Amino acid sequence: MTKPNYGVVSIVGVGLIGASLGLALKQAGVVTKVLGVGRSQSNLEQALKIGAIDGAVDLVDAAKQSDLIVLCVPVAQMRATFAAIEPHLASKTLITDAGSTKGDVILAAKEVLGKKACQFVPAHPIAGGAQHGASAAKADLFFGKQVIICPLQENSPQDIALIEKFWQAVGALVKMLSSVQHDAIYAAVSHLPHILSYALMASVINSEDAADKLSHIGAGFKDFTRIAASSPEMWRDICLANSTSILKELDQYLAIVQHLRKLIADNDGAGIERLFAKASKARQDLDAS
Amino acid sequence: MTKPNYGVVSIVGVGLIGASLGLALKQAGVVTKVLGVGRSQSNLEQALKIGAIDGAVDLVDAAKQSDLIVLCVPVAQMRATFAAIEPHLASKTLITDAGSTKGDVILAAKEVLGKKACQFVPAHPIAGGAQHGASAAKADLFFGKQVIICPLQENSPQDIALIEKFWQAVGALVKMLSSVQHDAIYAAVSHLPHILSYALMASVINSEDAADKLSHIGAGFKDFTRIAASSPEMWRDICLANSTSILKELDQYLAIVQHLRKLIADNDGAGIERLFAKASKARQDLDAS
Repeated sequence: MTKPNYGVVSIVGVGLIGASLGLALKQAGVVTKVLGVGRSQSNLEQALKIGAIDGAVDLVDAAKQSDLIVLCVPVAQMRATFAAIEPHLASKTLITDAGSTKGDVILAAKEVLGKKACQFVPAHPIAGGAQHGASAAKADLFFGKQVIICPLQENSPQDIALIEKFWQAVGALVKMLSSVQHDAIYAAVSHLPHILSYALMASVINSEDAADKLSHIGAGFKDFTRIAASSPEMWRDICLANSTSILKELDQYLAIVQHLRKLIADNDGAGIERLFAKASKARQDLDAS
Repeated sequence: MTKPNYGVVSIVGVGLIGASLGLALKQAGVVTKVLGVGRSQSNLEQALKIGAIDGAVDLVDAAKQSDLIVLCVPVAQMRATFAAIEPHLASKTLITDAGSTKGDVILAAKEVLGKKACQFVPAHPIAGGAQHGASAAKADLFFGKQVIICPLQENSPQDIALIEKFWQAVGALVKMLSSVQHDAIYAAVSHLPHILSYALMASVINSEDAADKLSHIGAGFKDFTRIAASSPEMWRDICLANSTSILKELDQYLAIVQHLRKLIADNDGAGIERLFAKASKARQDLDAS
């Protein structure tokens, strides 16, 4: 079995995700050349230095020269990126992305790319971490991690299969979901926890005795707020891009918290324990599975 | 310098905290004998088997035979435990505890022990974890961890110093706080995160597509909900024992979440980013400190 080769791959956005993808593709030996596009000169230089990319180009050259373009920019920048690429996009060139939300990115692709939207196979690698920038890149970032692909009706089965194998080539486990399912699920299991974690940090530092509180935190608080160290810009974009699903999940969550608040105010020990026991069992099952 | 010796130490409640304390005291070589008191025969047997205690006794014998009694029971059981000990408590015997709340435990001690309340030096070791029971015990559980002591006005300086050295003997870093300060601080940095974490698990498993959501969780969700695996009984007790401080902190938190909800609904990217950036910097500072 010969290895697939994706030819010239351009990575737009060489932060943690983009630079890790470059390292992983080169380590897997499935590319002819990796080109990088970035806003930050220092990030591009860092990506070159660690060997994540072989050269830096602008969006126009990326569109012209690439067999495959991977968009790793924050989701709010996807529309402008599609617009810059579109006039120069050859019909053989495929596009995939690493955006954390899918409905908004797909809408932008359809509106901007028009007929060429069939060349875009949307994806979301469930990988990353609190650190960002090319300096945090790791070749094994995607290894054993899920990548969700949300195919468009316009995509050909061949192109979907090609993008599926592309993400598998860097070690990822590919799952298919509709973009609606994707955005609802990740609002609950990723976007909401980030918002709640940011809110707890904000609540503690806003309080009068913030310094006292911060000097007494333990492992539980650190675990709970670890994701609050994430990129404010990226999570702002996600909140705006997936606001409908996020608000729905947030309101369901707030109803439970208000219920718990009432149980505590009413001194209802049995009610509190019932809710905690159900949650505790579910959380223990997660670790056991 | 000769080692201190705390003579016969009884540990009431040989769960994770109590059994770890027994192991740590014996490893430090600062006790003559460790006796265990427990509700669960299997837990007592486990504590004996791993060498956390030298023998099992009832509360009356513990009160009669001990130089020091350490109460490691859930906070809701403190009052009944004080009541069982009080009639048999010799004047030389000191008591300390490991309760996660202090105002309610001190109130119970004063009401039940009366004049003997001066023999009780309240403490709260900031140690533990999601696992519970003697089988999870570790001799180094307290090593490098904070123990908060909330001295009573009735305590003698000698007794406070003795209890301070006792917790230091198992490796802990002792800090003094008033019980009011303690309960306010831990409501914010420990009790509230536990409640919010239980609530998120409950919200996810209550939703129609719970199975889909649970199959897509990542590291962030796992970090955020790790403390939701904690003991429902223990956290029910804490919610009841510290309800005033918890409700105050919860309402401050809910105000921030409602503010964020409005920013998201209003599509106010600048406002969202400002709040996230402040929280993110504070969380990054925690790791740097």
